[in-house]
Amino acid sequence: MTLFTIGPVEMFPEVLEAGKIQPPYFRTKEFSDIILNIEKRIKKMIGTNEASRLAILTSSGTGAMEASVMNVFNENDRLLIINGGNFGERFRKICELHKIPYDTLTLNPDEKLGANHFLPYRNKKYTGILVNIHETSTGQLYPIDIISNFASENNSLLVVDAIGSFLADPYAMDEYDVDVTIISSNKGLASGSGLAFVVVNTRAYKSILNNNVKSIYFNLTDYFVNIERGQTPYTPAISVLLQVEEHLKIVENMGWDAYMEGIEKRAEHFRASIDRTKYDIPNYNLSNMLTPIFPIKKNAIEIYQTLKHDNNLILNPSGPPHSNSMLRVGHIGNISDSSLNLLICLLNKI
Amino acid sequence: MTLFTIGPVEMFPEVLEAGKIQPPYFRTKEFSDIILNIEKRIKKMIGTNEASRLAILTSSGTGAMEASVMNVFNENDRLLIINGGNFGERFRKICELHKIPYDTLTLNPDEKLGANHFLPYRNKKYTGILVNIHETSTGQLYPIDIISNFASENNSLLVVDAIGSFLADPYAMDEYDVDVTIISSNKGLASGSGLAFVVVNTRAYKSILNNNVKSIYFNLTDYFVNIERGQTPYTPAISVLLQVEEHLKIVENMGWDAYMEGIEKRAEHFRASIDRTKYDIPNYNLSNMLTPIFPIKKNAIEIYQTLKHDNNLILNPSGPPHSNSMLRVGHIGNISDSSLNLLICLLNKI
Repeated sequence: MTLFTIGPVEMFPEVLEAGKIQPPYFRTKEFSDIILNIEKRIKKMIGTNEASRLAILTSSGTGAMEASVMNVFNENDRLLIINGGNFGERFRKICELHKIPYDTLTLNPDEKLGANHFLPYRNKKYTGILVNIHETSTGQLYPIDIISNFASENNSLLVVDAIGSFLADPYAMDEYDVDVTIISSNKGLASGSGLAFVVVNTRAYKSILNNNVKSIYFNLTDYFVNIERGQTPYTPAISVLLQVEEHLKIVENMGWDAYMEGIEKRAEHFRASIDRTKYDIPNYNLSNMLTPIFPIKKNAIEIYQTLKHDNNLILNPSGPPHSNSMLRVGHIGNISDSSLNLLICLLNKI
Repeated sequence: MTLFTIGPVEMFPEVLEAGKIQPPYFRTKEFSDIILNIEKRIKKMIGTNEASRLAILTSSGTGAMEASVMNVFNENDRLLIINGGNFGERFRKICELHKIPYDTLTLNPDEKLGANHFLPYRNKKYTGILVNIHETSTGQLYPIDIISNFASENNSLLVVDAIGSFLADPYAMDEYDVDVTIISSNKGLASGSGLAFVVVNTRAYKSILNNNVKSIYFNLTDYFVNIERGQTPYTPAISVLLQVEEHLKIVENMGWDAYMEGIEKRAEHFRASIDRTKYDIPNYNLSNMLTPIFPIKKNAIEIYQTLKHDNNLILNPSGPPHSNSMLRVGHIGNISDSSLNLLICLLNKI
């Protein structure tokens, strides 16, 4: 099996080995050092400074999305949610449930987000903007500069779900004036699933401290207090932390630029090689993390099944409304040139 | 290093190997079959029937404790919480935060829970009872029959956190009239940390359906709906699920009785062998999962440090108020007779 999915992804051998180690007892100085090291590296790679805070949650990315919204905002806020797919819709559901007032900037499935989309929403006193910078359900990578400018003009807190983008696309939290960034362990970090990370800058941290969070498990302040001593308030997914540490070492050893360039080249090669008479590719900006393909004459699920059963290659199927029309091909993780070329060859033959 | 801790615990070789496998894509029939198999086995081992529902949460045990309370109860309920240590206190904090009315039956650190403790709480119309059947912070295993009788007399929903007891002590959810049982992956199931399980019977399920849960991530109904097709609503900790499957196989192959007897014998052997002129052991009922020991002349943390540094044996230190006075020795997981005898020998020499 080779996974062209975007979580889980093909893990590097060293990361797989880390999953096999007997998990150590974690309330020790030695384990605290591992967490502090991970904290330092993630802050660096996410492009923020030491004053920002990191929460390591044992949950899926959705848990971290909900935790971020609950901790930073309340019913006195007014949010603008960029809703261009399943994950934007998830942010909307979270705000709806927690009774946090919001408007949505809704995009059609094939619509490219631009500065003009924000015109109707100017001067509406939004206290926060929520965006999945790469809407993974459609593949669109939104223009962070336009969103960031809009947030700055409105003095809004900018919350970016970078789960589907981190370590695949350029990202610089402080440079883009992002206040909260959400990532998870099983996408760009190419480790096991089970951990999500929330990074908040000092501005967002102040909002969190002034808020009453109705959750013990998702009270981010507890995580920020505990990480000062290299700990989490509750037992973390220990093996996944060891895998994340290992993957961060791989990225560092390879050199961050080289690592990112490898993913970019893989995405470019795939997009240049796929037969456009057989597959449509959207016209909006794409993340390096994945390429959405729309088979022109065939059913997407049938292609998924054929590649899985006949060739052990797993593409990422899509949820509604794209289930039958779109497949997604992930470019992250330990994908070899030969697997990628085999996939291209088979797709072009179908 | 040998872990005499109670989460993480020493994992069996087959379970460690499962952690090394490349996590498969999980939205497939094959992975659904694994989940459905785990569901079947956990229900059987927890002693409930097929009509009960299982939620597989990617979180620590605390996440599942909070999820259970939030989903089953609301501000119209009135709960009795057995509070005899840190985990009883955690249930209290959860109810306090979620504004669910409660009384606490509070025990002194060395007090044994008996039927008399319940006399002042009779006929008070409790709609629910919350108990950590093994209060892991003190080691006390509470008498389930007394608690269950009290719950039945009051027609209360009985919520049992069995995190520190499942697969070490006898447990039979249906026989004890337990409505909700909470367990986690890294204790009796001797797998990696990151997953928690909530089993609810049809009575508790009705309460959940009639409730408004203010959480997307911890909405148990979503988990119950998804598990019908062998899935979870959000990406689970895939590798931990594979490890749990492996451990359940070990238990089945060894025979459940033989497996449980092994842990019981280990606990009995330790308790019979430890030098009582040097260590006190509490007089209340103990779980087979761990033995708390109170060094009479030495400081507990110093013993922990010595065993760790000189012998690579890790005991479970205790949180306040017992940090300096109590250590806990776990008996679950893949502990060999020779490691256990070495530990006993060293402890008796100190």
